[in-house]
Formats: sequence, C-alpha cells, structure tokens
Amino acid sequence: MTSDDTVAVSGSPTIATIASETGVSPTTVSKVLNGHSDVAPETRARVEASLERHRYRRRGRRQPVATAQIDLVFHEFDSAWAMEIISGVEAVANAATVDVVLSQLRGSHSPTRAWLDAVLARRPFGVLFVLCHLTSAQRQRLHRQRVPFVVIDTDSATSASVPTVGSNNWNGGLIATRHLLDLGHRRIAIVSGPHEVLCSQARVAGFRSAHDEAGIPVDPGLVRYGNFHVVAGYEHGMELLARADRPTAIFAGSDMQALGVLRAARRLGLDVPGQLSVIGYDNLPVAAWTDPTLTTVNQPLRDMAGTATRMLLDLAGGVDLSTSRIDLVTELVVRESTAPPAGGR
Amino acid sequence: MTSDDTVAVSGSPTIATIASETGVSPTTVSKVLNGHSDVAPETRARVEASLERHRYRRRGRRQPVATAQIDLVFHEFDSAWAMEIISGVEAVANAATVDVVLSQLRGSHSPTRAWLDAVLARRPFGVLFVLCHLTSAQRQRLHRQRVPFVVIDTDSATSASVPTVGSNNWNGGLIATRHLLDLGHRRIAIVSGPHEVLCSQARVAGFRSAHDEAGIPVDPGLVRYGNFHVVAGYEHGMELLARADRPTAIFAGSDMQALGVLRAARRLGLDVPGQLSVIGYDNLPVAAWTDPTLTTVNQPLRDMAGTATRMLLDLAGGVDLSTSRIDLVTELVVRESTAPPAGGR
Repeated sequence: MTSDDTVAVSGSPTIATIASETGVSPTTVSKVLNGHSDVAPETRARVEASLERHRYRRRGRRQPVATAQIDLVFHEFDSAWAMEIISGVEAVANAATVDVVLSQLRGSHSPTRAWLDAVLARRPFGVLFVLCHLTSAQRQRLHRQRVPFVVIDTDSATSASVPTVGSNNWNGGLIATRHLLDLGHRRIAIVSGPHEVLCSQARVAGFRSAHDEAGIPVDPGLVRYGNFHVVAGYEHGMELLARADRPTAIFAGSDMQALGVLRAARRLGLDVPGQLSVIGYDNLPVAAWTDPTLTTVNQPLRDMAGTATRMLLDLAGGVDLSTSRIDLVTELVVRESTAPPAGGR
Repeated sequence: MTSDDTVAVSGSPTIATIASETGVSPTTVSKVLNGHSDVAPETRARVEASLERHRYRRRGRRQPVATAQIDLVFHEFDSAWAMEIISGVEAVANAATVDVVLSQLRGSHSPTRAWLDAVLARRPFGVLFVLCHLTSAQRQRLHRQRVPFVVIDTDSATSASVPTVGSNNWNGGLIATRHLLDLGHRRIAIVSGPHEVLCSQARVAGFRSAHDEAGIPVDPGLVRYGNFHVVAGYEHGMELLARADRPTAIFAGSDMQALGVLRAARRLGLDVPGQLSVIGYDNLPVAAWTDPTLTTVNQPLRDMAGTATRMLLDLAGGVDLSTSRIDLVTELVVRESTAPPAGGR
C-alpha cells in the first residue's frame, strides 16, 4: 500500500473515522480516495457519501506520479505532415504503455539550452527529434545523461552515431524525375525545400542523377529552393510559369507546395496535366483529393515514425542497435497530374 | 543538493576519486553527472574525460521525474483538424511551462476503465478531452481525484457542470445556409457529421432555422448524416447529384467532406460553382488552396484549444470558473465555391 498523502484538515475526520463509520477498512477508504478501481460499486458509493458528508479535504496539491514517457519534439507543427508522424509514434508508444509528451521548437531547428535543461530534468525514457539538428555538445549531454534519442528524417549526412530514421530522399528525387523524363518532358523545374535542409539537396541530387542517366542537361534556372509550404509553391510557380521558355513540368518539394503550384497554373490559365505536369512529395491524404489528383512520392511517414519509436524503446531498454540509420523506401504514386508534354515528345 | 543516485560499480572509482583527480569539488562532479548547465565548459570537459577514463557507470535505470503535465486526449487523430487543436493547446501549455501528453482513443468516443485507471494513476494536472463523451461515473471519478478536466467541442447539451469550449454550431449552420438562400438557392442539401454527435444536429438545426426564416421548405431527402471524412462527402455527393431533381447547393459537414463533394461533382461533369455551389466547415488551411477555393465556416480551432487550456489551468490552480461553457463565434468565409444557381434566381 503506497503511503497516503492525505491528512484531515484540523477538526475534520481522519481516514480511520470514515472507515469506522462506513464499516470498511482504512485501506479501502484510501483506495476510494486514490481512485483505484477494485472497489465494489456500492462500497465506493457508501464511502464517497461519507467523505462528502464530512467534507473530507485532501491536503495540498495532487502530486503527479512519474511514468515512462518519451518526448516527441518537432521543429514546428506543420499540419497534416506532422499529424502523420504523431500518429505513427503514438501507435507504437501506446502499445508499449509509454506516454508521449509533445512539443515544438517554434520554427527553430535546434533546441535551446533552456529546453534541453528542462527535458533532462524530467529524465524522459527517450526523445524523438523531428527535423531538428542537435549540436555535438547537445548530443553529448544527452548521452552522458543516458537519455537515448532518435532523429526522424532530415540530415542525410548525420554522424553514424546518431540513430536516424529517414526515407530515401535521393531515390525519391530520382524516381519522380525519371517518371517525367519517361513521359517525354525535357524542361523540368524542381522546387525543393530549404537549401540548408539536406533532404532538399538529396532530392535535387536525385533529380540531377535522373537527367545524367538520360543524357539530358539540367537548366540551372529551373532549380529552386524555398520552403515546404503552399505559398512557396505558388510564388515559384508563378515566376517559373510566367517565363517565355517555361518548364513543361514542375517537381514540387511537398504536396502542400504542389497545391501552390496548381494554383499558379490555374491563375495563368494552364491546364494540368494538359499543359503542365506537376509532381508533389509526401503522399499526404489530401493528394488523393485534389483537382487533378496529385502524382507524388510516397514518404512512409507513419512507418518512419513507428520505426523510430521502436528504435528508441530498444535503446532505452539497453538493446544495442545493429544499425544506426534506417531509410525507408520512397515510391512513386502516379495519379492525374502528370502526362506527356503538350504536342507530344 | 539533491541526493545523488549514482554509485560506483564495485572496483570503480567514486565521485570523490573523480573530484580529487580533476581538482574540483564532489558537488561539481555530481553537477556534471546530472547534466546541470552551470559548470564552466573546460571544467566539464575535464570531469567528463576523467569519468570516461574510469568508465564510471550510473547505477540502474534513470528515474523519471514528475512534472506538471496535462493530458490531451482525442477520440481519434484526424489529420489537419486535430493538428489545429494540438497547436492551440501546446502554445498555451508551453507558456505556462506545463507539458502536454498526447493520446487518442482510436475512434472510441468514451475512454475505457483501463484508460482512466492509467491516467488517474499518473495524476495529471488536468485533462483536455476532444470529441469524447465521459459517463457520469467517469466524471465523478475525476472529480473525486481532484483531476480537473475540460471538454473541447462536441455535445451541445453537456451538463452545466462540465467545463466545455465549443463553437456555435447552430450559428454555423444558420449563416452558411443563409448565404446559399441569399444567393438564390432553393434546393440545398446538407451532409452533416454522425447523427449521434450533437454538433452535427446543431448544424442541421441551424440549416432548418435559416429555411424557416426565409419561408422555404426543407426537403427531408436532402438532409444527410455521415461522418466528417472525405469519402462520406464523395459518396453522399455522388448519390445526391445523380438524382434527376438534384440540389443546386451542398452544405458539407467539414472541409474534408467538401473535398469529397467536389470530387463527386467533377466525376459527374458538374462545374463548381457554375452548376453547383459547395460550402465546407472548419476553414482548415487547405480550404484556401482547393480548386475552386472553398467557401466555408470558420471554426476557430486554435482559439478553442487555447481557451480550453487556459480554463483547465485555472481549474487546476483552484480558480473558480465564472462560466462553465464557452462557445466561440463561427464566421462565414466566402471564397470561390459558391455562386447563384445556374439560370439565376
């Protein structure tokens, strides 16, 4: 029986009084007070009525009880993409009866010292970082504190000692571009994510590799970096499509960016896919419901999240990981937004 | 100085040894071991090198430390809608230095006994329930355990004693329908959420009130209940629009449902808004980027979440709430998907 932190307010009855009045043991009264479920309903009702009558007051604030928890930290909450990750993490954590504490860094890719202090003080079972960069000093602090962590997708060149789950961005860039080249496109623009995020560079590298493979030159004016949001797709789309020698296909860095590109095409009176092909990236649920539906690269976000969570639980349990980086496969999902260029090959 | 739970593995040095070897106090060595940040970098490096050399091992598992946390519980994780709520809650909780523990009930609207047992054992600061129904017995358990809770939107008829934050669903149904009637529509279908969720019924009631106001009868065949997802919008849309006496406008229960309706219209060769007007509900970010962009009812999800979190923190702090139910205002956001019916009024 755990020690009971309740005490009667002076002048009020004690647990012993309640017990004697209701004809149950003090242990049973304490069980009712602590909300344990193994008390017969009629007994509980009798005890609670007695507690109510005596206006029994628990002393002070409830003391929270620490349980096994993992921290899930996002660089920022980005709507549907983040929700896929959250779902994948929660599913595995829930099955392991581990709680998930959710937070975000409000757009910053690196946690602050204060943030790390607070997390270390709490001693979580482990931490999952999504699109965050940890400095070497921060990684050492976590390591010294025996707080395991896993990074979900971002830096394709993380140190071998940082457990990472990603998806094959280079392959994603390659297969999307091959699809467009196979359809006959020769002027293909790519609007990738931020230049400093290496997954953007990996996709552009895949884009270039596909061109090399086909012996087709890349026009540097058609290679753009932005961010992964809708507006960047719209702005780059408007600018690219307003050119006299506009591209016949645009490979956007995300499905949300692709929505922006679709809007730009609509604004300029260009039919998709009749006059312009568009490919997105991620395969978010909305990609199946746009007009036209979006050809895109499937990023298995829930699987990545689930895999990262299992890796983290293994690390927390003292299991040595056989490999520190796992990249899940990216696959092309062909829908309505891509077709041969107008006028054929 | 907190008691140090480290102990040297037999045959290995103690903190005193490390301290003496590195010329610092045992307190400083302990600070480095516990990851405290107020140690000069060069001192820390020296101590850590010494610890490494001696292969200093912390005893046993890290003990998690309990902190103030609130539980945020969803009936299910529904992509962008849930993300808006999560963002709103996290913003307020973060400012109050309270952690957010996230979970879902996997589609069930009521927590199980086991779930409640686990949460009560953890003694959170409070619980936020999203689209969940608590039985009277469950509410009493939480109350008895002094675990405050707030419900975010769902049952328009919750007991006055259940702190609730919602949005005015009846008003949302009213203003959307008025907009369509004002445009000249006389055969308007409504596809609402599940019948058993009262916010669906409140919106249908608003739909009916707008018709009463305008003296126009409602065709019962045009009143449908489904769920809030895309496929329900598509299926109801296909069925409604295939009728010879099809509606000239469809008021969908959510933006995601509206996407499904737009797909059905496209499939049947109907131009929106030229031949069919469509209104959504929620004003999710994607509503501004569909084709056509979606007229919808703004549900201030982040504000609702922030308000509910503030209410919960007040309750947890012992503040008496002056009112137990707050409904935030719903407003119409007019975009491209609504227009007068073909052929005019």
